Amino acid sequence: MHIPDLLARISAEVADEVGRGSAADYIPALARVDTGRFGMAVAELDGTVHGTGDWRQRFSVQSVSKVFTLALVLAQPGGDQVWDRVGREPSGDPFNSLVQLEHEDGIPRNPFINAGALVVTDELAARGSDVTGELLSFLRKESSSPGITVDEEVAASEAAHADRNRALAYFMASYGNMRASVPDVLAQYVRQCSIAMNCAELALSGLFLARHGIRNDGTRLLERSQAKRINAVMLTCGTYDAAGQFAYRVGLPGKSGVSGAILAVVPGRCTVCVWSPGLDARGNSVAGVAALDRFTTLTGWSVF
Amino acid sequence: MHIPDLLARISAEVADEVGRGSAADYIPALARVDTGRFGMAVAELDGTVHGTGDWRQRFSVQSVSKVFTLALVLAQPGGDQVWDRVGREPSGDPFNSLVQLEHEDGIPRNPFINAGALVVTDELAARGSDVTGELLSFLRKESSSPGITVDEEVAASEAAHADRNRALAYFMASYGNMRASVPDVLAQYVRQCSIAMNCAELALSGLFLARHGIRNDGTRLLERSQAKRINAVMLTCGTYDAAGQFAYRVGLPGKSGVSGAILAVVPGRCTVCVWSPGLDARGNSVAGVAALDRFTTLTGWSVF
Amino acid sequence: MHIPDLLARISAEVADEVGRGSAADYIPALARVDTGRFGMAVAELDGTVHGTGDWRQRFSVQSVSKVFTLALVLAQPGGDQVWDRVGREPSGDPFNSLVQLEHEDGIPRNPFINAGALVVTDELAARGSDVTGELLSFLRKESSSPGITVDEEVAASEAAHADRNRALAYFMASYGNMRASVPDVLAQYVRQCSIAMNCAELALSGLFLARHGIRNDGTRLLERSQAKRINAVMLTCGTYDAAGQFAYRVGLPGKSGVSGAILAVVPGRCTVCVWSPGLDARGNSVAGVAALDRFTTLTGWSVF
Amino acid sequence: MHIPDLLARISAEVADEVGRGSAADYIPALARVDTGRFGMAVAELDGTVHGTGDWRQRFSVQSVSKVFTLALVLAQPGGDQVWDRVGREPSGDPFNSLVQLEHEDGIPRNPFINAGALVVTDELAARGSDVTGELLSFLRKESSSPGITVDEEVAASEAAHADRNRALAYFMASYGNMRASVPDVLAQYVRQCSIAMNCAELALSGLFLARHGIRNDGTRLLERSQAKRINAVMLTCGTYDAAGQFAYRVGLPGKSGVSGAILAVVPGRCTVCVWSPGLDARGNSVAGVAALDRFTTLTGWSVF
Repeated sequence: MHIPDLLARISAEVADEVGRGSAADYIPALARVDTGRFGMAVAELDGTVHGTGDWRQRFSVQSVSKVFTLALVLAQPGGDQVWDRVGREPSGDPFNSLVQLEHEDGIPRNPFINAGALVVTDELAARGSDVTGELLSFLRKESSSPGITVDEEVAASEAAHADRNRALAYFMASYGNMRASVPDVLAQYVRQCSIAMNCAELALSGLFLARHGIRNDGTRLLERSQAKRINAVMLTCGTYDAAGQFAYRVGLPGKSGVSGAILAVVPGRCTVCVWSPGLDARGNSVAGVAALDRFTTLTGWSVF
Repeated sequence: MHIPDLLARISAEVADEVGRGSAADYIPALARVDTGRFGMAVAELDGTVHGTGDWRQRFSVQSVSKVFTLALVLAQPGGDQVWDRVGREPSGDPFNSLVQLEHEDGIPRNPFINAGALVVTDELAARGSDVTGELLSFLRKESSSPGITVDEEVAASEAAHADRNRALAYFMASYGNMRASVPDVLAQYVRQCSIAMNCAELALSGLFLARHGIRNDGTRLLERSQAKRINAVMLTCGTYDAAGQFAYRVGLPGKSGVSGAILAVVPGRCTVCVWSPGLDARGNSVAGVAALDRFTTLTGWSVF
Repeated sequence: MHIPDLLARISAEVADEVGRGSAADYIPALARVDTGRFGMAVAELDGTVHGTGDWRQRFSVQSVSKVFTLALVLAQPGGDQVWDRVGREPSGDPFNSLVQLEHEDGIPRNPFINAGALVVTDELAARGSDVTGELLSFLRKESSSPGITVDEEVAASEAAHADRNRALAYFMASYGNMRASVPDVLAQYVRQCSIAMNCAELALSGLFLARHGIRNDGTRLLERSQAKRINAVMLTCGTYDAAGQFAYRVGLPGKSGVSGAILAVVPGRCTVCVWSPGLDARGNSVAGVAALDRFTTLTGWSVF
Repeated sequence: MHIPDLLARISAEVADEVGRGSAADYIPALARVDTGRFGMAVAELDGTVHGTGDWRQRFSVQSVSKVFTLALVLAQPGGDQVWDRVGREPSGDPFNSLVQLEHEDGIPRNPFINAGALVVTDELAARGSDVTGELLSFLRKESSSPGITVDEEVAASEAAHADRNRALAYFMASYGNMRASVPDVLAQYVRQCSIAMNCAELALSGLFLARHGIRNDGTRLLERSQAKRINAVMLTCGTYDAAGQFAYRVGLPGKSGVSGAILAVVPGRCTVCVWSPGLDARGNSVAGVAALDRFTTLTGWSVF
């Protein structure tokens, strides 16, 4: 498979999908993004990156950051204890987030819904971590891009629209499932979502998941089983309420963000990152899902 | 009906119920109350009060305060607009509080669940009111008890355990249904719940509801229809998830609090306040409900 | 209060409301009813009936029948045991019907939602009653109208659209909360809803509730406390998800049906039946609620 | 990997798990099964089968049958239209089954919950299929076991305890999502769940999923993409409310049944069937999940 040709072909085939859907509109910084943008990058196991379109254009990573904070927690000694505070099951549908928190004693369903990611951030914060600092350090190193940083405009906008996440955090606190202070956790959470990266950088940063836990410098971040398990959680829970549909169409572990990014993993082969800001009703990039669908169809590299 | 005899008889008949149930245990100040206490007072339309047992013992009014803040809002010019922000339907069962907020766009079901009372307090606060100050002033005047004040120990304890209410408030804020600042509203809410009063004072303070809106000094607080409508909301929503059961057994508008107080209204006749800290599984005073049950059975004064 | 004048005034005042809303459309027999019809009748304790408009026009009683089957169960020896199988709490909102059945082990929230009424019918059927026969006999006697009977066209139409009620019944059966055979219970349930009566007949048939349990021939059907308690359940649960709103506006125990009928009780005074087929979003007659609102405003006879 | 040795090792390593959990107890025929039984079989792509323990002991396949009926529907011309009637998303948690049906207009979340499987059976029945006959024919052919048949005792027992499935079916019918008659669909559904097979037979019958749609005789049952997609649905929805946990521990598409069977697929390599009747709280075989966990750990053959 000649990847540059593949990317060119996919790019052509999904051209009609680019611009479809709507940009996330809950904060101005996201709402005014051009939905006509499309970028895609593939990072091979050896660190070679191929790209097409706007693959070098940065955007806020939003919920894609949840994959990395989860990995950072699990990489710590005793990190698996986070599973006492957050589950690993799909959340069903959106309205359940709060019902389920209420029914399940403040334990979020999985680390990729907002409530679960707040627990992960809290776990890092309670262990004394400067969460955003550590995360930036990791992402810069993996992608060899020392310039990766928080988009302060997005961060300010997110912070001004955080009441719902604040409600989730206090609700979990009322069940004893917050260890650090809620305002601190929220501040860190907002900043990690506002980190700006491009497709190449995200694809490189996620390679440890395709390499069963090994970082780009050859050191081990996670046990083999831990890396596989993050992939499993991405597949079952990584694309909001459309995880089943994504598994069905694409057949790869993937994590999406409302900026229109999706990071997907082909275990043992490569990572793929797509970005296109037009979202479908479930919050996933329309052109991004279409491109990944084409990718697995053309390569046969779905996990199934 | 000779009320002193009636109260003596009821007191004797419910003696076995006193001490049953458990005191609210979410804050130490409530948990250590003696569940063996029982007080009951009847206030007649002319302001005569009769009492039995611990009717002069003060306790924090807790959710009984919700009746008075609702009345204070409705008494303001344009006060009925609060109904745009809070409904008038029973909430079904406990787990629904958050589901319903989510399904119904941040509009609480009624002003007597916590979310709804937060909206009422917010409405007062946003109108520039010193909520607790105004409330104290009203209660002191109606009961001729200038010494009524906030129990600061209870208030401090409540403030330290307010995460769930904080979550509710931020959740409503995320739907645009908070006008004042959430920390301010919570502070006022906590203080109004911590006001300490006795059965006689509460019965006197509620007489405007039995008198179709007329205060103890003969001035009108509410329109006749407004007073009747508060009674209607008390009957359908005043005793948490046991409103149907309370209507069935007692047949009077009533509002309970987790301190073990219940304020009931016999329209056109009197008010009744009972207090006994042992609560049933729904959060209503065991001996209090039993005493009101006896009261309506012996007098025939249920509204049905 | 001169009731004929009162009825004439109400009729004039609600004229604008008549024709608003939509007829129930789940069966053709209801859908094609003229929403421009309006009838209202008041039955005084002595059996005198006053009426206005289409008060002698018959319609299928639909859910208003639930009041009478409940009374017939309670009138039996040990009838109060039905409360082991059905609750007395408002159901919150429509979507809860099945959730609550599932959460609460197949025990419906109250006897006036369909699931609860199926339990009441089942209780009668399991006790060997010819449910519809007994009900017809009771209604004919109370209203002195031997011609009251089932509208067979409506019954056939209902029977052809009973899948949802069938689902509810089998669901309760799966929890062991059906005693007779489900097809038999459904057949009886459909027939009792399809009984055709007019406003005068319904008002007369409900007088035992205004008379604290005494039938029109002076015999006792129910204990005083039982009659009051049916009124309490009507007030908290009688108008679907709008019970709070109905209590707020009208302030009387009432039971509505999707044919546009509402039977209301003024304890110790009279019953009122209104009929107008245009329904609001909650399934209650638009003009019917308006007429009862005017009725209590003009008479001051709300229970509050 | 020498599979007989592997199976012997797994069998030894999970010995402590065998007997844990409880047999399904909703029907006597399942409740009295010996929880001390354990069987496991691996079928390689060429049809070679290896087994250990009770791998030749037959049991009712229960929900494992849902995989095969789904395949049979999809194999028909226009079979993909079944996706208009049933979704592909995990169901969240058990209490949602009915909520979601209600919220989502009678469209079940996925074909592996009971409601969804009823739709699949209905789709076959409405297309004129003798569902159980066709299914038996397929299973007998794939496993070269002409003696596979329905366990009539289990079928009779299931039929006598089918009220909940009956409720689901009528509920969907009320939304217009049943095409054949409900009693017929239920009868077929009960019979297909009661088919008795052993581990070897199930592993062989599922090989088309490991072979991307090709049956054991080399003919194509499904398109490559269809087979992959069934695997995707198995992974996200195949083990009740524990799909996330199963993906996390085992990392393979799998479908479990309350008899204690689990059929798992290693795409491109083999199928694995385990059977041990002791179930965990989510309804999956305790020893079965443990054995599959060991299997993927020892072979490295998880899809992640």
